[in-house]
Amino acid sequence: MDSYCESAKAKIREACNAPDAEVFFLVGGTQTNATVIDALLKSYQGVIAADTGHISVHEAGAIEFGGHKVLTLPHHNGKISASQIEVLLNAYQNDANHDHMVMPGMVYLSHPTEYGTLYSREELSEISSLCRANQIPLYLDGARLAYALACPQNDLTLTDIAALCDVFYIGGTKCGALFGEAVVIPDVGTIPHFFTIIKQHGALLAKGRLLGIQFDELFTDHLYERIGIPAIQAADRIRQILSQNGYALCFDSPTNQVFCVIENARMERLAEEVEFGFWEKYDDSHTIIRFATSWAARMEDVEMLGKVLE
Amino acid sequence: MDSYCESAKAKIREACNAPDAEVFFLVGGTQTNATVIDALLKSYQGVIAADTGHISVHEAGAIEFGGHKVLTLPHHNGKISASQIEVLLNAYQNDANHDHMVMPGMVYLSHPTEYGTLYSREELSEISSLCRANQIPLYLDGARLAYALACPQNDLTLTDIAALCDVFYIGGTKCGALFGEAVVIPDVGTIPHFFTIIKQHGALLAKGRLLGIQFDELFTDHLYERIGIPAIQAADRIRQILSQNGYALCFDSPTNQVFCVIENARMERLAEEVEFGFWEKYDDSHTIIRFATSWAARMEDVEMLGKVLE
Amino acid sequence: MDSYCESAKAKIREACNAPDAEVFFLVGGTQTNATVIDALLKSYQGVIAADTGHISVHEAGAIEFGGHKVLTLPHHNGKISASQIEVLLNAYQNDANHDHMVMPGMVYLSHPTEYGTLYSREELSEISSLCRANQIPLYLDGARLAYALACPQNDLTLTDIAALCDVFYIGGTKCGALFGEAVVIPDVGTIPHFFTIIKQHGALLAKGRLLGIQFDELFTDHLYERIGIPAIQAADRIRQILSQNGYALCFDSPTNQVFCVIENARMERLAEEVEFGFWEKYDDSHTIIRFATSWAARMEDVEMLGKVLE
Amino acid sequence: MDSYCESAKAKIREACNAPDAEVFFLVGGTQTNATVIDALLKSYQGVIAADTGHISVHEAGAIEFGGHKVLTLPHHNGKISASQIEVLLNAYQNDANHDHMVMPGMVYLSHPTEYGTLYSREELSEISSLCRANQIPLYLDGARLAYALACPQNDLTLTDIAALCDVFYIGGTKCGALFGEAVVIPDVGTIPHFFTIIKQHGALLAKGRLLGIQFDELFTDHLYERIGIPAIQAADRIRQILSQNGYALCFDSPTNQVFCVIENARMERLAEEVEFGFWEKYDDSHTIIRFATSWAARMEDVEMLGKVLE
Repeated sequence: MDSYCESAKAKIREACNAPDAEVFFLVGGTQTNATVIDALLKSYQGVIAADTGHISVHEAGAIEFGGHKVLTLPHHNGKISASQIEVLLNAYQNDANHDHMVMPGMVYLSHPTEYGTLYSREELSEISSLCRANQIPLYLDGARLAYALACPQNDLTLTDIAALCDVFYIGGTKCGALFGEAVVIPDVGTIPHFFTIIKQHGALLAKGRLLGIQFDELFTDHLYERIGIPAIQAADRIRQILSQNGYALCFDSPTNQVFCVIENARMERLAEEVEFGFWEKYDDSHTIIRFATSWAARMEDVEMLGKVLE
Repeated sequence: MDSYCESAKAKIREACNAPDAEVFFLVGGTQTNATVIDALLKSYQGVIAADTGHISVHEAGAIEFGGHKVLTLPHHNGKISASQIEVLLNAYQNDANHDHMVMPGMVYLSHPTEYGTLYSREELSEISSLCRANQIPLYLDGARLAYALACPQNDLTLTDIAALCDVFYIGGTKCGALFGEAVVIPDVGTIPHFFTIIKQHGALLAKGRLLGIQFDELFTDHLYERIGIPAIQAADRIRQILSQNGYALCFDSPTNQVFCVIENARMERLAEEVEFGFWEKYDDSHTIIRFATSWAARMEDVEMLGKVLE
Repeated sequence: MDSYCESAKAKIREACNAPDAEVFFLVGGTQTNATVIDALLKSYQGVIAADTGHISVHEAGAIEFGGHKVLTLPHHNGKISASQIEVLLNAYQNDANHDHMVMPGMVYLSHPTEYGTLYSREELSEISSLCRANQIPLYLDGARLAYALACPQNDLTLTDIAALCDVFYIGGTKCGALFGEAVVIPDVGTIPHFFTIIKQHGALLAKGRLLGIQFDELFTDHLYERIGIPAIQAADRIRQILSQNGYALCFDSPTNQVFCVIENARMERLAEEVEFGFWEKYDDSHTIIRFATSWAARMEDVEMLGKVLE
Repeated sequence: MDSYCESAKAKIREACNAPDAEVFFLVGGTQTNATVIDALLKSYQGVIAADTGHISVHEAGAIEFGGHKVLTLPHHNGKISASQIEVLLNAYQNDANHDHMVMPGMVYLSHPTEYGTLYSREELSEISSLCRANQIPLYLDGARLAYALACPQNDLTLTDIAALCDVFYIGGTKCGALFGEAVVIPDVGTIPHFFTIIKQHGALLAKGRLLGIQFDELFTDHLYERIGIPAIQAADRIRQILSQNGYALCFDSPTNQVFCVIENARMERLAEEVEFGFWEKYDDSHTIIRFATSWAARMEDVEMLGKVLE
């Protein structure tokens, strides 16, 4: 309602080429996902997502808390495809007992994914067409969206996303803001009474201008589309260093998340000098670890990491 | 509260060799599963189940409606094993982010399973020991329990089940009753205020004696342990006929559910003469179908089916 | 799906003069209320009801379990009025903070009420007009509807109710059936996918024909509209006896529920000979008790009660 | 986890004289109430609160979204008493049908209340004793707690509150912070796995240090206990001005909220010059309005308001 929020919303609408879009500011990602998904689904519907999707694994059951099942599909490098979704929708429609099953009611994607990978414009277009043909909304979780926009391999602009998705959010928390996510609803009326739903979910920030100020700044002179560049440069350099030193990269991520396989004893020594994420067990003697760079990454720190990794 | 219910409860306690057990009568299976699982779990916990479990697929999201995630494990012939559960529990414990994940809070099994298969006493004992070591309750869905008890391959008695499970239900609806399921809680106090929880779930039958009368009859002279015999005999004969006629049996079910692969054109002709269940697509030209026999199966009907299947 | 259900549905449509009505059979009243109310409300809406309504007090929080608030209005003899509802709706609309409040999304009435009282056709018409003007559905709980239809003071026919309400249910459990309630939705499409919602709520009876058989019988030759007559005659006679013996009647109920004030010592003596309901404390030395007669009431039993009450 | 949070927690424990207390930082009030209440209640329990309580009216059904009923008691100047709670608990216990009712599972108070009034130490002690005798937790919503602590009429210290309540929160959002509430649990183990419950409710702030920094500052040199003083002084002066000018004060609030009755035409003129809250209709020609002062109130602004009110 305040002038900061109004200014930020106007800039976001312009950046997305979505002049009528409704924009709402929420505090965090899990809260945003839980609120949007609960708002888009009927009580008897579930949300289609990759089995590696954030809502499937790391939101402590926030979607189920709202009464909805996550209908998972096996991921490929963190992504799901239009054809997978189509198979699921057809299987539901053709199952003689589908009245006893959870109806698929929307699709959830993350871009970049939890594996740092990207949907291409073609892939997202196919999913969008399928969703529209089946009249189910498409929702894109952009928690790390700035790192997609800053990535040379990405061909999905904000304008594309606004044209192809029914709802999406532009991540602030992981992309330069102290906190905050901007939910964009390109077509007015897609979610009636969303304000009350936000309040019901305990997701309303009393002093909304704190969010407006941050997004107003992030969308001044297209900062948001550039802010991830240092992160991508740092990640690319880490990937180069890892390859040169014989580490196997995983998941083919081109964004700010770098995954590699490391021998366990080496991992333990590394942990004494560097902070990284334990991702998953690879085999009995190896582990997949993750390095995540940010908008604030400095090349000198990356080079120091390089020395440790040698 | 009435004398029919009291008599039925006494007989069930005796049949289960569980003199202190609490027994509650509910109307149907989905309702029973949703009510028991919601009662056993904390708000932040989920239930471990086979991905083919009834609660995972065919209860229209009744578990999620209560706010809980179903944590699925891949089935083997409809079953899950103690070692699979152990891997899941350890993965949860060892995940550095497990505070962001749904805590596994109980185990759900069905016996017979949705594929007609049976847990052995050894398998159930292993699962029970694991659950007790981890202090999570074990719940067994006995919707078709009579067909296990009547099956020569079954080595799990009601007494075993009562000793190994924290809660289980004895199915009436599919086992000779018009409707009704008997929830057995061997140790008093496992679920405080279960009556109110039943009411809250809309699962209380006003005239409870209707359930008491049926279970009193089913547990007179151990009828429940014998009532499934005609179903098993009929199913065995169907399996024999199918094998003799070159159909491939599936899932190795020894109980009243018979699964086989059939060529699609033949399936369509069969459908004109016999009622069977479409189970799932096998390949582009074949389908898996299901025959389910009941306590009321008659051998002459089976022989007529045999002629049709030739 | 079976022929009994189809026949029962046809008879109910005819009795209600609602040829297009959808009819669903559920097992019990709390389950029916929870399922219908959850189906009619958006996730952020609540249901308006009398503070004495069954859903407000005696359903163990089944409505809140579905995520919805009961927005209570003070009753008058168990009823609420169109003007009360209008005040609530206006207060909500005019509250500057109404985005922070639960939106009133439907109206729940019971007829007869929990106090045995009846809405007149004029009262129900006013409420119906108000609801339609505000585009919120009107739902009538007819758990004891047969006792309204059999009551000379009642001027609301099944046809009136079908014309004025968006959804209502015809009670079986308390009106001659062993169990069962028939939900009537006069306009097709009022509740999409209601079948799945019923399943999700654990409210689907596997052998639905058990319900069909009972309602088919209850609606043969308009039995349902007559079955309550003995109950009303018995209740009228009890009211006469009470008045003649100096008891103060309460709540002005003309149906099968009779309420009176009784001195506590006398109540205790009475309890040794007759079964009645303790309703509420009247003052330190008096209590309000309830006698409920049924379709099976016999006049000779009433006369015996009369002797005890002298 | 970070050093700011650790420091803030240590200072809060000291200020509350609760050396073992668990302290959690959440973002906003509705979120905090919904999360704590859901954590304290069993699935079949409800929360006792004043009918004017924030959770009863202005949280958009967030408590019901978690599946719980708010069991309201009529307020007296925004407060409820131990004797009212006792009557409710006894009525529940003595109701023959209480198994069909929502079990009262905790008590919710706000201090200051939504009407700006205060519980005395005696009143809170009585409520606390009653709760402990009945083994139900007592939770205090301190959204505006700083304005109680700064008020001469208040005799409840942080130490008292920590000794008398099972859980309470120290409000930041309305008391000098940009956002944030500090949940205090004096006895470790009162809420197992509260972290996961916070995450499940979407209430976890990714960069928790933002909350830690603010509370660390607010609890340096007992700032929190003094920060409300300018607000109280300003409110006292407004009350004086209003009385001198013939306005009737309402609700007897001694804190930073001032309520008075104003003639409607005058209210409209006032609205052109001053921002105030429309509270509720008083009669057809009068309205109750609210002035809320803050820690940042300046006396010169109050005097300007005084001129407008003359």
